[in-house]
Amino acid sequence: MIERISILGTGLLGTSAGLALRAAGFSGQIIGWNRSPDHARSAFSMRAISAIADDPIQAARDSQVVLLSMPIYATLDYMAQLSNVLTPDHLVTDVGSTKRVIAESAAKLYNAPSRPAFLPGHPMAGKERGGASLGDASLFRGAVWLFTDDPAARRTAYSVDLILRWRQWVAAMGARIIDIDPIRHDELVAWVSHLPQFVATALSALLEEQVGDAPELKDVGGRALREMTRLGASPYSMWRDIAHTNTEAIERAIHALEQRLAHLRENLRTPGLRNEFDDANRFRRE
Amino acid sequence: MIERISILGTGLLGTSAGLALRAAGFSGQIIGWNRSPDHARSAFSMRAISAIADDPIQAARDSQVVLLSMPIYATLDYMAQLSNVLTPDHLVTDVGSTKRVIAESAAKLYNAPSRPAFLPGHPMAGKERGGASLGDASLFRGAVWLFTDDPAARRTAYSVDLILRWRQWVAAMGARIIDIDPIRHDELVAWVSHLPQFVATALSALLEEQVGDAPELKDVGGRALREMTRLGASPYSMWRDIAHTNTEAIERAIHALEQRLAHLRENLRTPGLRNEFDDANRFRRE
Repeated sequence: MIERISILGTGLLGTSAGLALRAAGFSGQIIGWNRSPDHARSAFSMRAISAIADDPIQAARDSQVVLLSMPIYATLDYMAQLSNVLTPDHLVTDVGSTKRVIAESAAKLYNAPSRPAFLPGHPMAGKERGGASLGDASLFRGAVWLFTDDPAARRTAYSVDLILRWRQWVAAMGARIIDIDPIRHDELVAWVSHLPQFVATALSALLEEQVGDAPELKDVGGRALREMTRLGASPYSMWRDIAHTNTEAIERAIHALEQRLAHLRENLRTPGLRNEFDDANRFRRE
Repeated sequence: MIERISILGTGLLGTSAGLALRAAGFSGQIIGWNRSPDHARSAFSMRAISAIADDPIQAARDSQVVLLSMPIYATLDYMAQLSNVLTPDHLVTDVGSTKRVIAESAAKLYNAPSRPAFLPGHPMAGKERGGASLGDASLFRGAVWLFTDDPAARRTAYSVDLILRWRQWVAAMGARIIDIDPIRHDELVAWVSHLPQFVATALSALLEEQVGDAPELKDVGGRALREMTRLGASPYSMWRDIAHTNTEAIERAIHALEQRLAHLRENLRTPGLRNEFDDANRFRRE
């Protein structure tokens, strides 16, 4: 039975995980910590966590499961620190948006019989703005939660059981679990997650240059424009780490879209335009 | 007082206009016609229209206001036909997504004292799928409805009054009217409406090629992917006419986005990425 969970990083995802665990019936302790104490206090006042920790390392020691919910480089930093102080009785898991570097670090520092266990995870849920106050018990409902576990991991029976139980809680939060190789994960999310983000960023930045000084002109675009630029509000702080740890796959995806846009532009008055709409319609078939 | 309106084209916009007029209290006759009779019957059964016309020309003759709600080339075709049979006691207006060619046709065929009146219009509302059955009385609520009227139009006092009353009904449907020059209209919508559509089409077509054979992988993208590709379902039949009648402005906008994406791609690991996120964040500031 999992009875003590610590959530290191009570931003949007960490706070939502606490709320979702409670909504799913988790009645144990949830210790929360955040680099900026305001967000920990928000999470506490929302009852996403039952206690605020002063020291994240001590909070992790006192828990069976440690959920790292912070940007990727911070996750790697805490993975290194925690690997020295935790034991095979601890499971550490994360929510980072790229998995290759995290899986590599896990293979080096975790998942041996004398080491704590690490399960790399990535819930495909979020909002364009972060922060504890946007935390939402239903954020993971219907969302995919990817795990990129290492088939070569050597673990104690207790660790294996902790992983099984954490996966059950993730399912209880309403998420659909998919297991995938970390390299394949990073290639896939470059297409279906990172490319849409960077397109929204480029489109929003371009439109800011073109019509940003005339707010009434934004209204002309209506719902379509709002949707296509909503992710323009996403924070650099989170996406920098993603761009740095999945660069080649993202470059390939953006470059492919540049070429597709050039093709479409060159075919605005030819039957080639119909082919583009046909392909696009197929992607959205129901 | 406007007492007889005909809606030629009872697809999504035409049917929604009929429903919105009724919701706003219009109690006169609304005659509907559609090239495919099924959509006229749908609109009738939804009470968006009070009668189905067999002959669109006769329906227009019998009305004070004629709303053309069909793709642009079909609109131009009916503009030509109707200009020969209607009188200065008729107002024709439209909902086409580009306005230069329609305004040019209106200047040639309408808006002289012996001619019927024409008011070029463009409600910035729609859905990614068309058809009468998706008609929605609140489609225009909060949306911008652009008019690109001709300051050189020479009209009878009755025509001027019809235009004023039609604008009042548009406002009563919940839309916010903005008047704009037709050339400026086409440049503006190239940025805030056509570019987002063609980006969604190119992105959807590219993703169909990359992950289209694995539906479970689409789910991984979650809400962000769904939003960024929703417009991928838009029909070629409507967008072909837009691409043909606003080609240069759309080419410029797509080309600018290609360059912005290339710049972002080349700066995934430099501080230039922060600038792109800062500009995008500014576009989405609240």
